[in-house]
Amino acid sequence: MNAGWVAVAGLGPGDEGMVTAEVREALAQATDVVGYIPYVARVAPRAGLTLHPSDNRVEMDRAAHALAMAAEGKRVVVVSSGDPGVFAMASALFEAVEGFAGEVPDIRILPGITAMLAAAARAGAPLGHDFCAINLSDNMKPWELVEKRLMLAAEADFAMAFYNPRSASRPHQFARALEVLLAACGAARLITFARAVTTPEERILTVTLGEAVPEMADMRTVVIVGNSATRRVGKWVYTPRRAG
Amino acid sequence: MNAGWVAVAGLGPGDEGMVTAEVREALAQATDVVGYIPYVARVAPRAGLTLHPSDNRVEMDRAAHALAMAAEGKRVVVVSSGDPGVFAMASALFEAVEGFAGEVPDIRILPGITAMLAAAARAGAPLGHDFCAINLSDNMKPWELVEKRLMLAAEADFAMAFYNPRSASRPHQFARALEVLLAACGAARLITFARAVTTPEERILTVTLGEAVPEMADMRTVVIVGNSATRRVGKWVYTPRRAG
Repeated sequence: MNAGWVAVAGLGPGDEGMVTAEVREALAQATDVVGYIPYVARVAPRAGLTLHPSDNRVEMDRAAHALAMAAEGKRVVVVSSGDPGVFAMASALFEAVEGFAGEVPDIRILPGITAMLAAAARAGAPLGHDFCAINLSDNMKPWELVEKRLMLAAEADFAMAFYNPRSASRPHQFARALEVLLAACGAARLITFARAVTTPEERILTVTLGEAVPEMADMRTVVIVGNSATRRVGKWVYTPRRAG
Repeated sequence: MNAGWVAVAGLGPGDEGMVTAEVREALAQATDVVGYIPYVARVAPRAGLTLHPSDNRVEMDRAAHALAMAAEGKRVVVVSSGDPGVFAMASALFEAVEGFAGEVPDIRILPGITAMLAAAARAGAPLGHDFCAINLSDNMKPWELVEKRLMLAAEADFAMAFYNPRSASRPHQFARALEVLLAACGAARLITFARAVTTPEERILTVTLGEAVPEMADMRTVVIVGNSATRRVGKWVYTPRRAG
């Protein structure tokens, strides 16, 4: 019998108070923790636990390594920030399962507070009606598909949450996304830039699309665009439950 | 000085292991807990804590009551299942703030694991690429808007998560939603019915749209439809990170 397992665990947006008890328990049982360097750095070292931090963009290697260690009987936690199922390691793990030669070990996905939920909570309730979540990085899809989705989401009058909005290597794309949104949603539509949510560097800024500039976002920012009914009340921004 | 506050807190999908430490702490500090009967029932009684369970469909009364108690200096937690910002009490609270005559007390929104994230984790990673979340109830919007959003979401090739898919009072609407999806996405598209996720009654069922029937869902079910690339690996279903 092989007692090894893999748990893909969401550490939430950064605040330790947003980690679930289930994830803490998995980390307490683990023999090995695998993940991107800053996420592994959030796990306290202890005797009997081996930390395997790795660089970004090696998700498939990391997933295969986790499966191989579990197949040898180890108890492996793959750590993600936020929720592992939202633009994070869970899909990469299942891609690795498809290519795994050995007997697939026991796998559990342990949900976490994904960035858009923490950002929405800090801003108020901008995702309080139907919404969509789009990864604005074109690492994994053509940019044309991103623009198509933005236009269809605007037509559907979804509130929208954007992950990975802007990086130094492709600053023009987020500028283009703002142009598309301005044309489709109008200058008065509210947009919230939530940077480094729940960390000491947190900064929440809500402006209109007419006021928004690309420099308001970086790769630590989650961007939330309201729907046509989203409005301010005091310092808060929220989307009413009722529409149409 | 008024030390009262309102925290709108997400209890997650049901399993106590998915409650965050931040939410536990707010409940430990509360003088009053307000919410729908089954959610308040999840909070342990203790000396100094008054529980105010109320029926469904009185969200606005509940929110106004929470604000009024906080304005009197009480520490009030409004409990939601899942995440308070996703088809839950946070938007109702801000609606009540707009109509509140007194000085608005301190408000915090405390995120939780929303049902679709728990459901996705149990099924694998069906929300691993761009996706949308739609409340299928027509309590708060015309049914025509639901159908329009389904068609646009299919055209965008979003994975989709549906809350409140089916109730006894409107069983025909979910049947109609399945028809729209079948026409737009084809018979081979994967659909997951996740009932009572993380509770003892949990049941996860993945079939194709060609095989799906309305009776597979009830009001305790979250439904997840994959995108065009969503596939099975072993007992799991996942959406690859790459598209297009």
